[in-house]
Amino acid sequence: MDLFEAMLTRRSARKFTDEPISDEMLEKILRAAMAAANSGNQQPWRFIVIDNPALRDRIAELDIERGGYYKSPQLIVVCGDIGSMKWKMHWLADCAAALQNLLLATHGLGLGAVWQELYPYHKRVAAVRGILGIPETVYPMAVVSIGHPIDVPEPTDRYDPAKVMSNGWIAP
Amino acid sequence: MDLFEAMLTRRSARKFTDEPISDEMLEKILRAAMAAANSGNQQPWRFIVIDNPALRDRIAELDIERGGYYKSPQLIVVCGDIGSMKWKMHWLADCAAALQNLLLATHGLGLGAVWQELYPYHKRVAAVRGILGIPETVYPMAVVSIGHPIDVPEPTDRYDPAKVMSNGWIAP
Repeated sequence: MDLFEAMLTRRSARKFTDEPISDEMLEKILRAAMAAANSGNQQPWRFIVIDNPALRDRIAELDIERGGYYKSPQLIVVCGDIGSMKWKMHWLADCAAALQNLLLATHGLGLGAVWQELYPYHKRVAAVRGILGIPETVYPMAVVSIGHPIDVPEPTDRYDPAKVMSNGWIAP
Repeated sequence: MDLFEAMLTRRSARKFTDEPISDEMLEKILRAAMAAANSGNQQPWRFIVIDNPALRDRIAELDIERGGYYKSPQLIVVCGDIGSMKWKMHWLADCAAALQNLLLATHGLGLGAVWQELYPYHKRVAAVRGILGIPETVYPMAVVSIGHPIDVPEPTDRYDPAKVMSNGWIAP
């Protein structure tokens, strides 16, 4: 798929078939995620792929502050390994950049995904840490439901010239 | 450019010719940025394009904690407008996702860019707020130097299977 087509037509998918994503496609998706821009080339992102159905359901049905996550055959929990970093300030933005690539790659392969926040909701972070045995030096920052989508929303053009300013802040 | 080629070959450019990016290309780049995933469709991103040479130099030569930013004919200061948001927690990740699209779009057009952090370095944030008249409810989060690149680094494959775990955290 063309780069601009991918960026401009990607939407969140929230309903999935039961067919899991193949290992080959998952590797393509995670390779793209790991190619994202990041500060000081520290690459703090980590990815926990959950395909055990009981574990998947425990995460998906977590009912802390938001009432669960969309069910898909696999979930990916994206984490920032702060303990691995010399300069720790940028981990969240680094992981978010990786997540944007992950979503684009998923869409480019004809699959679908939705990004659901954990960090900075500390109760969600603590709950997911507990279930997955994630150490305190690692921050789970999102749950991604991913799979073969049913019913993806139509693309919309979100370009808004009022969000572009020239040589200084001018309130829209 | 193909999506995966773009994601896997994008690198930061740090040296640029004097030729500015055309308005048409800038709009393509910012349209891609505004198509990024974001929480609750709040789209908190704002973009200040700086092409006034004196102002550009004041920003580029800011010597707070990092010794300046790479010079290019235009700089883009990416901001999160927290004041516009009902749910304010996710602004940084939203802006980072937009920035990843911005970098990919730039690369896809044969141009180059580098993402340089402002937030969460509060002295840098305050300095850039002062120069550009950015209100307290808006966080400038990055300076992007952008233009026609000279000397872009070769692509590298950053895929690391040790960063992918299955059904729980296992320390690499």
